[in-house]
Parts: sequence; structure tokens; C-alpha cells
Amino acid sequence: MVLGKVIGTVWSTRKDEKLIGSKFLIVKQLDLQNKLKENFVVAVDSVGAGVGEVVLYATGSSARQTNVTKDKPVDAVIMAIVDKLDISVKE
Amino acid sequence: MVLGKVIGTVWSTRKDEKLIGSKFLIVKQLDLQNKLKENFVVAVDSVGAGVGEVVLYATGSSARQTNVTKDKPVDAVIMAIVDKLDISVKE
Amino acid sequence: MVLGKVIGTVWSTRKDEKLIGSKFLIVKQLDLQNKLKENFVVAVDSVGAGVGEVVLYATGSSARQTNVTKDKPVDAVIMAIVDKLDISVKE
Amino acid sequence: MVLGKVIGTVWSTRKDEKLIGSKFLIVKQLDLQNKLKENFVVAVDSVGAGVGEVVLYATGSSARQTNVTKDKPVDAVIMAIVDKLDISVKE
Amino acid sequence: MVLGKVIGTVWSTRKDEKLIGSKFLIVKQLDLQNKLKENFVVAVDSVGAGVGEVVLYATGSSARQTNVTKDKPVDAVIMAIVDKLDISVKE
Repeated sequence: MVLGKVIGTVWSTRKDEKLIGSKFLIVKQLDLQNKLKENFVVAVDSVGAGVGEVVLYATGSSARQTNVTKDKPVDAVIMAIVDKLDISVKE
Repeated sequence: MVLGKVIGTVWSTRKDEKLIGSKFLIVKQLDLQNKLKENFVVAVDSVGAGVGEVVLYATGSSARQTNVTKDKPVDAVIMAIVDKLDISVKE
Repeated sequence: MVLGKVIGTVWSTRKDEKLIGSKFLIVKQLDLQNKLKENFVVAVDSVGAGVGEVVLYATGSSARQTNVTKDKPVDAVIMAIVDKLDISVKE
Repeated sequence: MVLGKVIGTVWSTRKDEKLIGSKFLIVKQLDLQNKLKENFVVAVDSVGAGVGEVVLYATGSSARQTNVTKDKPVDAVIMAIVDKLDISVKE
Repeated sequence: MVLGKVIGTVWSTRKDEKLIGSKFLIVKQLDLQNKLKENFVVAVDSVGAGVGEVVLYATGSSARQTNVTKDKPVDAVIMAIVDKLDISVKE
């Protein structure tokens, strides 16, 4: 899974019919120093994540293993909201 | 999903028989400042997207979860046309 | 899908038994100015593509959705030969 | 599979219900000189790996082929703890 | 598929039970001039490949389509040993 922060929303009315009701969030990748990277994905939310929250998202076919994404054309899903990171090994 | 803009079409007559009737669009990735990146994919359209439109596309096995791509050798599908982006968190 | 040009062939006699008879082509990625990139893959051909031809290839599980690649350990398949590109949106 | 070292843990209480009880570990990629790279993933542990250990992780749908990750929205799993590397071919 | 050379072995005793008996090989990517790249993967061998041999490996779910990797948490498999490359198109 990838660590990211929700920074916004994508609005779409014309979309695949299976996606009606799905919420598309813009998620920027975070590094381990809590800094935003340039890379971002648009992910469907399955856990009630809001803008500004630090999350994990899963990609590929694994993104279809939640109740809200099953059998849908979705390749990224937010499946956890992060409370904190514990980093024990320094480089 | 990935944010992109449709910039053209790929024409092909000799192709896998399951792909007869599929429309191949050239989609360049967009950044969050609405600037085109160098990266592009060729995606099948499932939502009536036209050249110049901003879209989302899904990749991998998720690209086969629409009615027009089911069981076909397609690894990228346009599954939404974007109305607008709301970006709330600044870097 | 990815745009590429077939530049050669890989010969292999010792291979997974499901791959007997499969033709392995070396495909270099093409950019939209018809210039070869450094990146290449080895793809199975499903459409009679020859060396020098411009093609599309699909990757991942989608590469197993043709008659010649079904259930085989193949992660890239040529599924279309390109006639031409129409690019309408300039950068 | 990818070679990495477990460097920490991600704590999450709000997550997909299938993930209750799953342990999320932060794994940095290792090069062949045993040096940490910048890239990292968050992986579910299936083999009792601890912080500081060198591991292999599998990604994509293959990450769901262990007993602890089956049918879950998980795209990276630690499936082996590394005893040692034997490198015989020099560059 | 990706062109590579087997350069070593990963030894692991604590691993997912489905992987008992699987041989993990370190495979560095090769370019078309037969030079090793920095990138490497750890792949399961399905064709009796040995250290020093030039091989093709398949990734993702396609890596589980051999008899030795079926249903296992394996995302890279060596599925062919390369006899030679024929490159006909120059850059």
C-alpha cells in the first residue's frame, strides 16, 4: 500500500454506471518525513476519509476487494486512515 | 485512477477480434496545474469521451470492469469525464 | 496500452511448456513523434505483427485475454497493429 | 518479489473491516549492497517479520495469495524473511 | 516479459508455507546491448535456470500461470531461458 494525503476531490457526472455514487479523492503521495511528493492518484474512498487526512491506498485488482469497489473499474482505493507512523530503523 | 486529457486517436484495422469496434484514444497525463506531462497511454473509451476532454482512466485488470472492455485485452479504460477538480490542501 | 515498434525476436527453446509455439517479439516504446525510447518489453504476438511494424501492446492480466495467451505466463501481448495516429491537441 | 527491510509500523484504527487484525509494516527497498533505497511500501505481514529484518514482499494480486491476505484490499505482502543472499555474477 | 540475467540466489527458511521448495533467484535486468542494469527482482524459477543464464521473466498475476507458481504469493517467475536475440531495426 502507498502512504498519501487527501488533498482534494474530482467531480464527474459522466462516468461508468457502476461508479454512480463513488467519491473520487485526489491523493498525493507522502514520504516518511510527512512531506508531499509530486505523484498523485485519484482513488475511491471506502473508509470515510476526508480532505487533509493521511491515508493508505491499495492499487490494482486489490483496489476492488472492498464492498464499495467490488467489480468496478477502480484501480485505487483508500482502505485505511493512518493514526501514526512508528519508524524504528534509521538509514 | 490517473488524470489525463484526450489528445488524439489510434487507428488500427488488424487487431485482436475482441477489439473490433473499440475506440483507442491517446491520453496524456495531466498534473494538478492542468499541464500536460510527457507520459501517455492508449486507452479504450467507455464513456463517450472526445478529443480535448479531461478524463480519468483506470489501468490493469480494473480496465476490464466496464461493459465495453469485459474479457478483452485492454489494460487502460477511460471510465469518467472530469467536470472539475477541487484542491483544498496546499503543499 | 502502450505504443511501440517491433525491433526483433527472442529465441528460446527451454521455456514453460504452455509457451511452446509462442513467438516472443522485442518491442521498443515509441513516443508521439515516432521516436524510439530506451524502454522495451518482450511481448507475445497475437495479431501477426512483423519486425518494423508499429503496434499496441497490453500488459498484466489483460495480456492473457487473447486466444494465443489465455492462461499462459505472459504479461505483455501485441493486440493491434497501428495504421496511423491522429493527434489533435497540441501541448 | 522485492528485497526490503522492515523499518517501522503504520497504526490505523479506521480501516476496511477485512483489515481488522492485519499488521501494516513499513518496508524500505534494499539494494544488493544492503543499502536502503528511498522507495518504500506499506505491506501486510504474513510470516511474523519484525522491525529490522530483511524480507521479500510480493505485490499486486499475488499479495492476496496468503492465508492472512486472501480477498483483502492488500497490494503488498511480506511472504519471506531472508537468511542471506548469494551473488555469484559480478557486473 | 523482461529480459534479465540470473546473478544469484536468495535463501529463506521462514516463508509462506506455499513457498516451501520454491527457488528464489536474483535477476538483474539486461539492456539490448547485453549490459546489466541496476534494477533487479527476485523471481521464482520454473524452467531450471541457473546463475549466469539470460532469461525472460513475467510479472504480476501472469507469474502465477506456471505449474510451480500456481496460487502462490509470487509476482515474478522465470518462464524462459534465452538462446539468442535477433535485433533487426536499428534506432
